[in-house]
Amino acid sequence: MSSQRYTYLGPEGTFAEAALLRIPGAKDAELPPSQTVPAALEMVRRGTADGALVPLENSVEGAVTTTLDEFASGEPLHITAEVLLPVSFALMAAAGTELDDIRTVGTHPHAEAQCRKWLAARLPRAKHLLSASTADAARSIAAGEGRFDAAIAAPLAAERYGLTVLATDVGDNLTAVTRFVLVRRPGPVAPPTGADRTTVVAWIADDHPGALLELLTEFAVRGVNLSRIESRPTGERLGHYCFSIDCEGHIADARLGEALSALHRICDEVRFCGSYARADGQPPQIRRGTTDGAFAAAEAWLASVRG
Amino acid sequence: MSSQRYTYLGPEGTFAEAALLRIPGAKDAELPPSQTVPAALEMVRRGTADGALVPLENSVEGAVTTTLDEFASGEPLHITAEVLLPVSFALMAAAGTELDDIRTVGTHPHAEAQCRKWLAARLPRAKHLLSASTADAARSIAAGEGRFDAAIAAPLAAERYGLTVLATDVGDNLTAVTRFVLVRRPGPVAPPTGADRTTVVAWIADDHPGALLELLTEFAVRGVNLSRIESRPTGERLGHYCFSIDCEGHIADARLGEALSALHRICDEVRFCGSYARADGQPPQIRRGTTDGAFAAAEAWLASVRG
Amino acid sequence: MSSQRYTYLGPEGTFAEAALLRIPGAKDAELPPSQTVPAALEMVRRGTADGALVPLENSVEGAVTTTLDEFASGEPLHITAEVLLPVSFALMAAAGTELDDIRTVGTHPHAEAQCRKWLAARLPRAKHLLSASTADAARSIAAGEGRFDAAIAAPLAAERYGLTVLATDVGDNLTAVTRFVLVRRPGPVAPPTGADRTTVVAWIADDHPGALLELLTEFAVRGVNLSRIESRPTGERLGHYCFSIDCEGHIADARLGEALSALHRICDEVRFCGSYARADGQPPQIRRGTTDGAFAAAEAWLASVRG
Amino acid sequence: MSSQRYTYLGPEGTFAEAALLRIPGAKDAELPPSQTVPAALEMVRRGTADGALVPLENSVEGAVTTTLDEFASGEPLHITAEVLLPVSFALMAAAGTELDDIRTVGTHPHAEAQCRKWLAARLPRAKHLLSASTADAARSIAAGEGRFDAAIAAPLAAERYGLTVLATDVGDNLTAVTRFVLVRRPGPVAPPTGADRTTVVAWIADDHPGALLELLTEFAVRGVNLSRIESRPTGERLGHYCFSIDCEGHIADARLGEALSALHRICDEVRFCGSYARADGQPPQIRRGTTDGAFAAAEAWLASVRG
Repeated sequence: MSSQRYTYLGPEGTFAEAALLRIPGAKDAELPPSQTVPAALEMVRRGTADGALVPLENSVEGAVTTTLDEFASGEPLHITAEVLLPVSFALMAAAGTELDDIRTVGTHPHAEAQCRKWLAARLPRAKHLLSASTADAARSIAAGEGRFDAAIAAPLAAERYGLTVLATDVGDNLTAVTRFVLVRRPGPVAPPTGADRTTVVAWIADDHPGALLELLTEFAVRGVNLSRIESRPTGERLGHYCFSIDCEGHIADARLGEALSALHRICDEVRFCGSYARADGQPPQIRRGTTDGAFAAAEAWLASVRG
Repeated sequence: MSSQRYTYLGPEGTFAEAALLRIPGAKDAELPPSQTVPAALEMVRRGTADGALVPLENSVEGAVTTTLDEFASGEPLHITAEVLLPVSFALMAAAGTELDDIRTVGTHPHAEAQCRKWLAARLPRAKHLLSASTADAARSIAAGEGRFDAAIAAPLAAERYGLTVLATDVGDNLTAVTRFVLVRRPGPVAPPTGADRTTVVAWIADDHPGALLELLTEFAVRGVNLSRIESRPTGERLGHYCFSIDCEGHIADARLGEALSALHRICDEVRFCGSYARADGQPPQIRRGTTDGAFAAAEAWLASVRG
Repeated sequence: MSSQRYTYLGPEGTFAEAALLRIPGAKDAELPPSQTVPAALEMVRRGTADGALVPLENSVEGAVTTTLDEFASGEPLHITAEVLLPVSFALMAAAGTELDDIRTVGTHPHAEAQCRKWLAARLPRAKHLLSASTADAARSIAAGEGRFDAAIAAPLAAERYGLTVLATDVGDNLTAVTRFVLVRRPGPVAPPTGADRTTVVAWIADDHPGALLELLTEFAVRGVNLSRIESRPTGERLGHYCFSIDCEGHIADARLGEALSALHRICDEVRFCGSYARADGQPPQIRRGTTDGAFAAAEAWLASVRG
Repeated sequence: MSSQRYTYLGPEGTFAEAALLRIPGAKDAELPPSQTVPAALEMVRRGTADGALVPLENSVEGAVTTTLDEFASGEPLHITAEVLLPVSFALMAAAGTELDDIRTVGTHPHAEAQCRKWLAARLPRAKHLLSASTADAARSIAAGEGRFDAAIAAPLAAERYGLTVLATDVGDNLTAVTRFVLVRRPGPVAPPTGADRTTVVAWIADDHPGALLELLTEFAVRGVNLSRIESRPTGERLGHYCFSIDCEGHIADARLGEALSALHRICDEVRFCGSYARADGQPPQIRRGTTDGAFAAAEAWLASVRG
């Protein structure tokens, strides 16, 4: 059997790679990194990768808009799995470097923003320099490029680039977490697990005030809870949006199916981006009258009165 | 071919009989009157009549609660037609009676309430006496019972009982109209005409505040307009209601079917009381995304993404 | 100090009189009966009575539409108290009458409808005859008019007319209750008790589909629960309604005040019909953010940001 | 009179500077650039600048999350004006450079993403290199740093750095526009112009499903339209958001005041970020019953019935 090939937002040693390694089967797969989220998803679209692991949102930074915009344009893609990765920053350097030696710290701008307090307290005199990614700062040190004395990156980066970890958990928010998703070409949807999430993109038909309220009402009236909703510009003009939505449940659920059908009716377009097991395993609270059984009974009743 | 047999809220000469005569085929049918609405509907339930013509609501008096309560209890019945009858009251008496001779006027309490201004202006000294129905006052005069000098009743009553009409349109509200319905045992529903009405009774599941709002939302979100909604006590306790509802459209319409299915899911019980052509022939305004075509397209889309 | 004068829906011995006697101070007042609800309220409007005790709704029969319609037309009136009276029917006759002697039973049509099972079981051969009120049947027996052998009426009627009670609780629904209200000319509203009810009539501005939904939303969004809402025809045409509404709380409550103001903005007319203590003493459930304190804090905040 | 001092997202020659120059009085003011949005707003908070001009959203890229997050944290700030600036990219180089000479083009990543089609068509062999800002690429060329042959930046950058414009409107989306806002320390709000916008941040109280729907309903029920709503993480955990909202109207408007008061009641916190004239001058559509006059009439009515 041919092995799988998964790409991720690289380079090697990123949080994305760390997240990917949590996907069952990833350890036996080929794992070529991609430079950007669009590049990773393009590999999937072209079939040069079976899947791509990319970040979707972060509890501190919010949505990864590049990822959201990729789902909303180009060939459709499906999310088939999600990974919640605690954002555990480590300070790393070449072997032999001591904390006192550090004059420059390299890392990605987002990481720098999330480690400022620690840096101010422990390395008050170090200059913060920016790199294209956290892993790239680590790579640069390992390559002896002389740009940084130390890097802030995922612990995995120290492992990948042979660096020494000088301090762990240097982030200011120790509960920070990033949600990554595994993205594939559309195919049969895996059956419900009982604790699922579904992602869609919806383009509102008439761009009238109240359109978002209508959209939310279609979910609420059928007892479908949303765990995330974000507006993204369509590019046409200010105030013209599409919505990226995560809802609790599976496309096979009657309530969710009817809610998405309703969206399809009232929207210009709805794009299904996958139903997949929630990483936190939390089942939805199901409101009275919205179980599959209730829908089936109602449909049977309707058929009987229609005669 | 055996002829039809329709009963109505009698006695002969009532507005109900006048309304029944507007039903196609009624003139060739046997038309036994019933004394009360429950008695008329009981004939239908037992099969001793093919249909019953009973009042449902009046533009001045409101709902006919006896009729509503009959739909909500006992064996289910279906409305198959409706008639809108202008309430045109006539003053009638035995041949030879002049306006000046009239000392007593008999009629039904509702009719008396609706003709007070005319009576005060034209027969200021006449006593108003109550009868069991407008037609019964006419009948009594014809029978020479000596209870009333004149009766206020439907023009048809004069015809039926051989009385002379002394004045027409003696009602204070010349636009008053009563809506009658033809009721039959449940059977196949006639196909949509494009301007239909559907009647249901719904028993709310949890008697919580906001339950009515939820019920209305199920219709509104699917673009189904209600033309009448009335609460009726269930008899259990104050504040415990069921709802009698008329909505625009036909049970065969996708939007109405889905709305009633939703009611079936969130209510303790929903009773379908018929889909039938509107007497006024007014088609519904159909909101974007709620046509049968939109529902079919959404269902096809859902099937495709479910795979 | 001059004593009070309260009228009620008579004649003497009705359930309305029984309810009136529960009003504090009624026993020391003059209590002239009225023949009809409109007549009773007219006495209040003209000042020939200080108050009138009339039925508003019954757990079996529903709203008393005559009363609702009186509130919606004519000079405004205020409800200042409510009484919940269990509908306890008694069978009564002249002294010496035995159950076996009873060939005819007189009572009001509503009472007759509510005692049919008992009558069928215990007096299967007795004829049911109708009277203008339950008390009038009792009066007729006491007067020796010979119309009925027995009457079904409130126990108070036996007392008032010197009849013997042959059986109590002859109603088929032993939990039946009627809600009566004491009505006065508008005046200062009594302060909140913490368990209050407020009655209003609202005429919807545009008679469009969804108008009722909008009206309910104005209450719901401010956490005001409705305990009763009924549509009544305006008389203009079928489908044109005003709404009679009971809501939990007092006009002095911030949430209720804002909700009624909202109704005033979106309706053609809103008529305030009184805030008064609930007979059941049940306080409202107050949703987060809808206390008077929350409204005051929000207003203070708004004033501060408005500068 | 001392002159004003406004900072902006620099360096000199950015779109932000171009936008700032459209603010009345800016040409006579001192205009020190800031390196980042947080730095610019910090100058305002500390009083070293009277105002800061920063981007809030872009019709192609969406919200500027750094700006949104600054409004939601730290000392409150008020928006006092907005500028809509068409995003008109120009290709510029040192005098004497011809299109055919260009091997490398420097610009900001967002600008690069928005000019790819033009670059592919007209400079298919040029390498795209990234700079910290569009203006910085222009500056680098003027400084002779040798990093880029040409820069893509705002036309103003060519002026500021003495470069030659080789091509204008090189963006792929010619309708792209950025919305900038002028931010000041809180002070008295300028009176309504009739075409105003108000910005707030709201932290939902209970993080329950349906909380966003409730929040939107508070606006909708009072006829206040939203022109933008965006969720931003609070940093506490995934799925915990605050909302950045632009609504039509002015804090002095009765409907908007009541809506924001309602938000204050149901939210943990609401932060007012200013009412200011809309750059497009478009007045709101005012729904029946939501004018200041309607609110004043309702309040007067309420006061009268409260007595």
